[in-house]
Amino acid sequence: MAKKRGNAEVADLLRVGPGFRFDDVDPDATPGYDGDKNDGEKDLAAGLEKLSELQERLFAEAAVGEAREAVLLVLQAMDSAGKGGIVRHVVGGVDPQGVELAAFKAPTKEELAHDFLWRIEKRLPQSGFIGVFDRSHYEDVLIGRVRELAPAEEIERRYGAIVDFEERAAASGIRIVKVMLHISRDEQKQRLMERLERPDKHWKYNPGDVDERLLWDDYMAAYETVFERTSTDAAPWYVVPANRKWYARLAVQELLLGALQGIDPQWPGADYDIEVEKKRLSAS
Amino acid sequence: MAKKRGNAEVADLLRVGPGFRFDDVDPDATPGYDGDKNDGEKDLAAGLEKLSELQERLFAEAAVGEAREAVLLVLQAMDSAGKGGIVRHVVGGVDPQGVELAAFKAPTKEELAHDFLWRIEKRLPQSGFIGVFDRSHYEDVLIGRVRELAPAEEIERRYGAIVDFEERAAASGIRIVKVMLHISRDEQKQRLMERLERPDKHWKYNPGDVDERLLWDDYMAAYETVFERTSTDAAPWYVVPANRKWYARLAVQELLLGALQGIDPQWPGADYDIEVEKKRLSAS
Repeated sequence: MAKKRGNAEVADLLRVGPGFRFDDVDPDATPGYDGDKNDGEKDLAAGLEKLSELQERLFAEAAVGEAREAVLLVLQAMDSAGKGGIVRHVVGGVDPQGVELAAFKAPTKEELAHDFLWRIEKRLPQSGFIGVFDRSHYEDVLIGRVRELAPAEEIERRYGAIVDFEERAAASGIRIVKVMLHISRDEQKQRLMERLERPDKHWKYNPGDVDERLLWDDYMAAYETVFERTSTDAAPWYVVPANRKWYARLAVQELLLGALQGIDPQWPGADYDIEVEKKRLSAS
Repeated sequence: MAKKRGNAEVADLLRVGPGFRFDDVDPDATPGYDGDKNDGEKDLAAGLEKLSELQERLFAEAAVGEAREAVLLVLQAMDSAGKGGIVRHVVGGVDPQGVELAAFKAPTKEELAHDFLWRIEKRLPQSGFIGVFDRSHYEDVLIGRVRELAPAEEIERRYGAIVDFEERAAASGIRIVKVMLHISRDEQKQRLMERLERPDKHWKYNPGDVDERLLWDDYMAAYETVFERTSTDAAPWYVVPANRKWYARLAVQELLLGALQGIDPQWPGADYDIEVEKKRLSAS
């Protein structure tokens, strides 16, 4: 733990600022962390205990009290950048009863017949929960823009719609943490190659992954526009260098810890008379 | 692992047979397991690796193949028997992306306006998933019967409706494992007392828990009727002695392993030309 700086500092280092460019980010870097992989894995395990207690307090406050807070982690990335590993190793460590996970695929016909935020709104986390979006409404301004799935003016409209939507969600008590896991093109090539080489990974490979990869620069440009238009105080974007999986997991854990510490949930007091209940229970 | 018998044997020992009576079950026992708590915790960790791989294979088969199988774990118990611990320590160890958890509370007004199985059907697991019901449609013939929340003839109708419903779910590919965690009255008293004594547990205590506790014998009779009427080959009931939490977790893990081994999911083969894709990827 001594090797790790406080999470406020890590959040500051990773938060997207004005004029953000990917050229300024090294996907191999470990901003705010001086340790190596071994340290990182130990710190991840230690952080998990803190995260678990905070999650349980958040859940308890909403279950029996008036608390309305929730946390929403939005995960975006190019293929193979490690979203699944974050879900498994960061979020997967807390009590699944307090987690709501939503994986957004290509929209269905029914979903396409509604505004792009219709399916998203339905999956916002309840009070007391940690929600995780594995892909999100941002696909509608990422692949939506790169593949021209909607007219330019519709894409343009969506940035504002997203900002309004997220502000409303934040005002209702949801702390929103938006993370883009950033790997290099070379790293992606290696990871996709591994999927082709290992029979237990074949199912994770899709020929379409290479088609998207060929549009890498277009995607990076689309992400830069997303950051410029939608990184707000209510719902900031963080770009997490993700060539080192252990660092990305640690960094996202820090961001979640920061969000929960910001809420600072407390164990709710008893809304019954403890001594009376002890007597009733003893007599039963 | 040497101390543990095979899971087919554990399943046989725990499976509810004709004429089942709680009087014949010792909630302190550890059927099919000769080890102690330490052994049990080690075996749980070892079993988790097997469970994780089987879960991923199940998920993979449904994600890219034609496989339609899923697993559904139904958890029922008196308060404090450890349903939450099963979710946390048994199910919580596998990839959350392959788990669908549904906690059924007292039905809402909308739910009450439909047949009792309406809300249940909607939460059946998709192909490839492990679904978990934390309480279930069985509440409608347990508290429903004990508290007379519905007329006797309606309760009577429900047993048959449940059997039909579960047979249909099983025919669609869902392996159903129904577990009743069985603790003694004394054990429950201690666990509820702990909730009253620890400020971080106060939120888990509800004065209504003692009211239900006073109806213990009625609940046990209602469970015995449930077993008699709804334990079928398609959806068998298991009564798991649960005074020792470590044993209950190990036993439920064994039951889940058995269900998954019964499905025997395999890594799906590539539905693309691996060599062609390697070349495309290399050139990209």
